Amino acid sequence: MKKTLVLASLLVLVPALPVSAQTPIADRYRETANRIISTAFADSSAWNRLAEMTDKFGNRLSGSESLERTLDWVLAQMKSDGLDNVHGENVMVPHWVRGEESASLITPRAAPLHMIGLGRSIGTPAAGITAPVMVVGSFDELTRRAAEAKGKIVLFDVPFTSYGETVRYRSGAASAAARVGGVAALIRSVSSYSIQNPHTGAMNYDTAVAVKVPAAALSVEDALMLHRMINRGETVVVNLRMSAQTLPDAPSRNIIAEIRGSEKPDEVVVLGGHTDSWDVGQGAMDDGGGIVAAWEAVKLIKRLGLKPRRTIRVVGWVNEENGSRGGLGYRDAHRAELDKHVLAMESDNGVFHVLGLGISAGQGGLAMGQDIASLFSSFGATKATDGGTDADTDPLNALGVPTISPTVDGTRYFWFHHSSGDTMDKLDPHEMAENVAFLAVTAFVAADMPGYLPRPAVKPAGR
Amino acid sequence: MKKTLVLASLLVLVPALPVSAQTPIADRYRETANRIISTAFADSSAWNRLAEMTDKFGNRLSGSESLERTLDWVLAQMKSDGLDNVHGENVMVPHWVRGEESASLITPRAAPLHMIGLGRSIGTPAAGITAPVMVVGSFDELTRRAAEAKGKIVLFDVPFTSYGETVRYRSGAASAAARVGGVAALIRSVSSYSIQNPHTGAMNYDTAVAVKVPAAALSVEDALMLHRMINRGETVVVNLRMSAQTLPDAPSRNIIAEIRGSEKPDEVVVLGGHTDSWDVGQGAMDDGGGIVAAWEAVKLIKRLGLKPRRTIRVVGWVNEENGSRGGLGYRDAHRAELDKHVLAMESDNGVFHVLGLGISAGQGGLAMGQDIASLFSSFGATKATDGGTDADTDPLNALGVPTISPTVDGTRYFWFHHSSGDTMDKLDPHEMAENVAFLAVTAFVAADMPGYLPRPAVKPAGR
Repeated sequence: MKKTLVLASLLVLVPALPVSAQTPIADRYRETANRIISTAFADSSAWNRLAEMTDKFGNRLSGSESLERTLDWVLAQMKSDGLDNVHGENVMVPHWVRGEESASLITPRAAPLHMIGLGRSIGTPAAGITAPVMVVGSFDELTRRAAEAKGKIVLFDVPFTSYGETVRYRSGAASAAARVGGVAALIRSVSSYSIQNPHTGAMNYDTAVAVKVPAAALSVEDALMLHRMINRGETVVVNLRMSAQTLPDAPSRNIIAEIRGSEKPDEVVVLGGHTDSWDVGQGAMDDGGGIVAAWEAVKLIKRLGLKPRRTIRVVGWVNEENGSRGGLGYRDAHRAELDKHVLAMESDNGVFHVLGLGISAGQGGLAMGQDIASLFSSFGATKATDGGTDADTDPLNALGVPTISPTVDGTRYFWFHHSSGDTMDKLDPHEMAENVAFLAVTAFVAADMPGYLPRPAVKPAGR
Repeated sequence: MKKTLVLASLLVLVPALPVSAQTPIADRYRETANRIISTAFADSSAWNRLAEMTDKFGNRLSGSESLERTLDWVLAQMKSDGLDNVHGENVMVPHWVRGEESASLITPRAAPLHMIGLGRSIGTPAAGITAPVMVVGSFDELTRRAAEAKGKIVLFDVPFTSYGETVRYRSGAASAAARVGGVAALIRSVSSYSIQNPHTGAMNYDTAVAVKVPAAALSVEDALMLHRMINRGETVVVNLRMSAQTLPDAPSRNIIAEIRGSEKPDEVVVLGGHTDSWDVGQGAMDDGGGIVAAWEAVKLIKRLGLKPRRTIRVVGWVNEENGSRGGLGYRDAHRAELDKHVLAMESDNGVFHVLGLGISAGQGGLAMGQDIASLFSSFGATKATDGGTDADTDPLNALGVPTISPTVDGTRYFWFHHSSGDTMDKLDPHEMAENVAFLAVTAFVAADMPGYLPRPAVKPAGR
């Protein structure tokens, strides 16, 4: 362990040395990595497995029967794959149901609008809410024009910049509208390209605002149209109907399967994705691809007869989309063994062409990540960058577990995510195989190498 | 006229001469063309006008109130623009109505499908048609497997190659299915890219097949999913409900406005687009953009005080989508003056970036087209190719009228056309201005130049 750390530190301190000469990890595992990669690339088995799962069960919102049936099926398949310690770990999850919903333009002309309710929103009365629409481009603009908002449906027509920036409107629109007397909130879909496919996603009610109003996304197209009408001085009236409701929490599971370590079985590499999705499309990209790629990676290691010194554990976290109960539940159930978690990886950015990896570890971790990434030169995934947590690995990282995340070409991720367009055809079998290869190699290396990835500092308020 | 023709013929016979030296038309009109182009590029007025029209009235299927209200509005606007001879010319149009429709997967699991009925299709019984699905990849495959088709819903899952090739399945699927005992036809949407936006369009019933069955398109995504399920050996059962019906023909109009020629008012340059659209989206691209660009082109010529020697006539043809009654009606109403139609142009490929022009004229016409296109070097639209008829100008060309069509960058045309995705945001104000400039310059040149474009041979069976 020491030796590797020292070498890694040298990489940072002496950047002038050629990087190719400084790959102690890669040198040790290059042959194994190439075997894994060529086997992963030899067929479309991962894509086919994902297609089978998502065609068979469809999307998988927390609390739904389709999610539970998917989990049953995956656990049964994992057992027949011969993986070790296959089991579910109980997690109670929020149970929000969409029900029937619609939005209609009433004035200046009658027309259906392309809408989708936001997750966790309350519903409307049965007849819906019919009110004039006020359009704003930001929270600040709503604050400035607060006096106009009373009795209005407030439409936030905010162009997509980055997800982190624009998603604030999905989260906060309802309470911002309610605070100034609005009766409902609409947002322009948080998406970077649209063919009339509105995107859902989680919203929140600010506990400091007493009144809750319903919230939905309009397609980019319809949001722009209403905005143009209002810019022309027209009065725009919309009817919004949503029968959404939140039922009592429902029982669900994180799912787990392992290859038990040959020498240090209590030391664990975790890799996975989340099993739940939103309730539209197939949830193929977000995040069927992630959990199936991780599962296939572990199967591939087993199929090749590789015997890692540490345990490799695939985890299907549940409820990433509307509660993060799976990620938090895993942390809490395994808190006592987290100091033996040597790496955690989640794939939740789409199984697109891999560009490299992000890593969140201690001092020297980035250089070791670079060393590992050099194993992926055959498909150009050699870039290592700082920062490698995802929603379900972030709670582990906060408690000192090194995390890695595959970095992928996300050009079209926000075209599809949380919408009806998240379907199998958006994923490419070879690109998915790259993700399988990446996860398998990285997991195997971390589970087998003499040293350890340096651990990040524990965050004081690790959630 | 003679001189120009001789020059044009020389261009063809002596290709070694530098083309740039042989631009007698362009040399004469370059200054005027540059004035037109710079004025068209100075603002977004054409895009704004199109947005106003399509936001105000929405899509415009033949027989619909929204089409008639649009035509009333455009005629009133054309009058207030000060154009000459503004009027409608009566045309009776087919009146097909979609009504309510849906498709649902019943087996192996319950799920809504993304569908759209094909134009002119009959409906289903009120409870819909519920039947197992048979999938084929071609008409030939259906013929080979005809014995399996009885009682089935036949799904043609045909990948998009070119529109001309793939649209044969939209047209012919219903009768092909009925011929072998199928109870309904589904097709994979005729589109080159999809985010769950199924495309409609006209279908036909083969009069040689006694039975009519309903026909609809599935989204590309859903067609692929059903195909995968069937490939896995699963029985796929679908319920298809359509209340589509064809009502008696309805009165509508071609719309016309002119700038009367200063010297030869009986000689006419026609330019236009079609005013009708399918009944989804806004019909902004297909073909609101075409008719508005032509109208704006004529307004621009008037606004600049240009006085062409011949008459320039903008025509909004009706019913291009499901009957071509406007194009045929114009031909028939103006048959006596077609020998004085010196050029006809239709814009119906989307008002995207202009690449040049297609021309269908007599011997030497292509060289004259090249000469005119050289006026568009400032925006790279200098390419001239053979072939420049569109649906509504083809009947005129068949009777000897030279035709020109703008050639545009159609990369995304079949992403949107005939679907909910055909909306204003898919069009760019500057690209639309290019189309206005192209149409205005070409119309003005043809209406003012000393010579004439050579006339194509009359086709024996000109429809």
